[in-house]
Amino acid sequence: GTVLDQDSPKNALFKIAKESGLLAESREFAKHLDSLDKLGHLRQLFEIPLIKDLPCSKKEKHDGEEECLYFCGNSLGLKPKKADVYLNEVAKDWGRTAVFMHFNGLYPAALCDMYPKPLLAKIIGAAKESEVAVMNGLTVNLHLLMINFYRPTLKKYKIVIEDHAFPSDRYAVVSQMKLHNVNPNDGLITCKPRKGEEIIRTEDILRVLEEEGDSVALLMLSGVQYYTGQKFDIKVITEAAKTKGCIVGWDLAHAIGNVKLALHEWNVDFAAWCSYKYLNSGAGGISGIFVHELHHGKNHHPQLLGWWSNAQSTRFEMRKEVDIAEGADSFRLCNPPPLLVAPHMASLEIFDQAPESERMAKQYLLTGYLEWLISFLLKDEVKIITPAIPRERGCQLSFVFKRDLKEVHKELESRGIVCDVRLPSVMRIAPTPLYNKYEEVYRFVIILKEVLEAES
Amino acid sequence: GTVLDQDSPKNALFKIAKESGLLAESREFAKHLDSLDKLGHLRQLFEIPLIKDLPCSKKEKHDGEEECLYFCGNSLGLKPKKADVYLNEVAKDWGRTAVFMHFNGLYPAALCDMYPKPLLAKIIGAAKESEVAVMNGLTVNLHLLMINFYRPTLKKYKIVIEDHAFPSDRYAVVSQMKLHNVNPNDGLITCKPRKGEEIIRTEDILRVLEEEGDSVALLMLSGVQYYTGQKFDIKVITEAAKTKGCIVGWDLAHAIGNVKLALHEWNVDFAAWCSYKYLNSGAGGISGIFVHELHHGKNHHPQLLGWWSNAQSTRFEMRKEVDIAEGADSFRLCNPPPLLVAPHMASLEIFDQAPESERMAKQYLLTGYLEWLISFLLKDEVKIITPAIPRERGCQLSFVFKRDLKEVHKELESRGIVCDVRLPSVMRIAPTPLYNKYEEVYRFVIILKEVLEAES
Ligand SMILES: Cc1ncc(COP(=O)(O)O)c(C=O)c1O
Ligand SMILES: Cc1ncc(COP(=O)(O)O)c(C=O)c1O
Repeated sequence: GTVLDQDSPKNALFKIAKESGLLAESREFAKHLDSLDKLGHLRQLFEIPLIKDLPCSKKEKHDGEEECLYFCGNSLGLKPKKADVYLNEVAKDWGRTAVFMHFNGLYPAALCDMYPKPLLAKIIGAAKESEVAVMNGLTVNLHLLMINFYRPTLKKYKIVIEDHAFPSDRYAVVSQMKLHNVNPNDGLITCKPRKGEEIIRTEDILRVLEEEGDSVALLMLSGVQYYTGQKFDIKVITEAAKTKGCIVGWDLAHAIGNVKLALHEWNVDFAAWCSYKYLNSGAGGISGIFVHELHHGKNHHPQLLGWWSNAQSTRFEMRKEVDIAEGADSFRLCNPPPLLVAPHMASLEIFDQAPESERMAKQYLLTGYLEWLISFLLKDEVKIITPAIPRERGCQLSFVFKRDLKEVHKELESRGIVCDVRLPSVMRIAPTPLYNKYEEVYRFVIILKEVLEAES
Repeated sequence: GTVLDQDSPKNALFKIAKESGLLAESREFAKHLDSLDKLGHLRQLFEIPLIKDLPCSKKEKHDGEEECLYFCGNSLGLKPKKADVYLNEVAKDWGRTAVFMHFNGLYPAALCDMYPKPLLAKIIGAAKESEVAVMNGLTVNLHLLMINFYRPTLKKYKIVIEDHAFPSDRYAVVSQMKLHNVNPNDGLITCKPRKGEEIIRTEDILRVLEEEGDSVALLMLSGVQYYTGQKFDIKVITEAAKTKGCIVGWDLAHAIGNVKLALHEWNVDFAAWCSYKYLNSGAGGISGIFVHELHHGKNHHPQLLGWWSNAQSTRFEMRKEVDIAEGADSFRLCNPPPLLVAPHMASLEIFDQAPESERMAKQYLLTGYLEWLISFLLKDEVKIITPAIPRERGCQLSFVFKRDLKEVHKELESRGIVCDVRLPSVMRIAPTPLYNKYEEVYRFVIILKEVLEAES
């Protein structure tokens, strides 16, 4: 059996510890876990920042030549080394062949958005490539999708989001309502955790749908909550919403490349994501969308169009009417930037070397290891608000500390630990299976403990 | 007096020829013009493709080490050499500092869209930086602007475009109409040249506005027509449309970096452009918009919003309501890509070294020189459909040949001449003041003549 068969990451860890004869809380055990890691060889495909290069580190105090401990893959993924190679190649194609780069070179400019599609289709669980398109940025894409999919009527006009949705999503949804003269005070339904709880219960979302579903036009949640790390049950929630005739869209910013997705099978209507977090494709990188096959070739709803909405075969005939591309590609408007496709491909190729089952197994154990070490060593300091049930989370754990973290964060950074703190007291740590090591998690918790003790 | 004071480019050229004692049709004269060129030193800031590197060239037949003759700056501008430097720097910042690149490095990711603004403001004639924003691709931006600015009512709902608008613009406009249940058969007004003419007369546009203006919600034309090279009189047309209470938007894809623009002074409501043509910033590069100060702080119309619509100072406070940025920046939705800002900056810095008056003077003379040489040497072969009046055009001349160009084009390409042909018989040539030489124009026309003679 695999680690996923164990009833908890802790049990899986203890089983390995027992077999190895090592203490679960020892550094040797962390090294042992690394030695068992089937994805360990992928780390060398990324550029790991050195402590001395971080603007926050105190190089004089610590060994600057050492690699930092990077736990911000949920914010900006590390650079795949191949990104440089592909970027240089695209820049060279431009310089050497100029306008001929439209149909020549590594990623011909006029076709470059096609290259990531098969790789993304696997990662998100699309049934076919035509369910995926590569374009623009995330919030732009959410809007383009909502223009098509959010068609409020007098009776069915509400939108369900999380109360603590990423602000951009809330702004997007509210501005779409205003576009249709829907009053957000009436039309916006926000799901919250119960009083005293941190996590939104699936049953509470289902109850909202049960009670208000008939007036709900669109449900749009995040696959993984950016703040708490909660993974929503996309399958169950989608099904319930669709039973009520709602359109269901998912913001996968924190889910893609992080948790297992089967968007086609789950009957998700549409989804959008960014590529700079777990997809390691660079800040402001090119984004993507999923549109379920169910909606392909349907034309009931207005869709914003541009020349890239055309089928590739006729695009340059410059027709006066759009010869619409199949599926998700019809949402494209503009010619795409090969300079953003280059790093995206560098990263997606690494994903292609990392079977999903291995990524999920490592994610389960690595995050579980962080969870266990924290509760073993720092129980009195930290509350974990991310769900304790592994299938309800991805890489990230969100900690609430019993004190202000300002000085602690500074001290951690000065030692080359890169982690996300929302002052006063929340810390989000995302070990990622593609480049993080168990020993890094170990060192992080030990240093954190040291710093907390020194600061108190 | 400058060349622009001469009553025609031909007269200006003949005056220089006379002063120099050279024959206007000689190669020496072309070289002499290059020696007088105040922008000649800028060419070395660009990578000029070598003949041997072009996929179309026959290296064995011609000197492959030579630079090609590049006349497609209206399609994809050449790469500024500094683009490589800035791209490498951004890639290095990502690799070395990862998430710290949001506020550190050459173009900190979270702020990178601010860097091009002052340079663009000069190029388009904005009154202040807040009239400019840097974001997305052109067609996406046209849509975002139209969502805000095209608000059809029962009486005022029509849109005026060119009949031969770039197809993407037509698709965009028609899909916006459908979004509002406006029937394009009724609502779309297209301006055409008169029968037997190639160019749309300003008086005909003004007549359309006079006759139908009361029902027109939006006029959206291109600043420079992509096919004919006609430059529209933005000032006069904008004024007439605004007198009729229309909103006026301009697609500046072929105008920016090409012709003189004074968008603020001309009271243009909004404009959008791409950066990969005369702005030399790379295929699919980051685009920009202009929103006139008149509209800043006004909130009558719905606007699609995202976290980048926030003022920079409060963006990361993650408020539930948008704290709207000033002016054009409020149209931003997504975090911007520094990998696209890098080549954009490399190019805009070259523009900053080329005073507008010098660019306009060279454009006048260089395109005039091409025009004169063609009419001197190839009058019987070619009709020029671009306006003969210099203030009604930019760099590009569009030629209609009396024969099919398929073989001619192949032969030109095999000799390293890069030019745009729309089969059967249209050729568009755009010598650009920043990197083209007079001698290149001379060599082009001579080779074209040779090839035409050999093929007939
Ligand atoms: C006049 C004009 N408008 C719009 C576009 C579409 O550009 P994009 O693909 O950047 O949206 C182009 C592209 O060449 C164009 O020339
Ligand atoms: C959940 C979520 N949605 C939306 C966004 C907005 O992203 P963008 O700037 O790429 O549109 C983010 C950015 O971090 C996010 O985390």
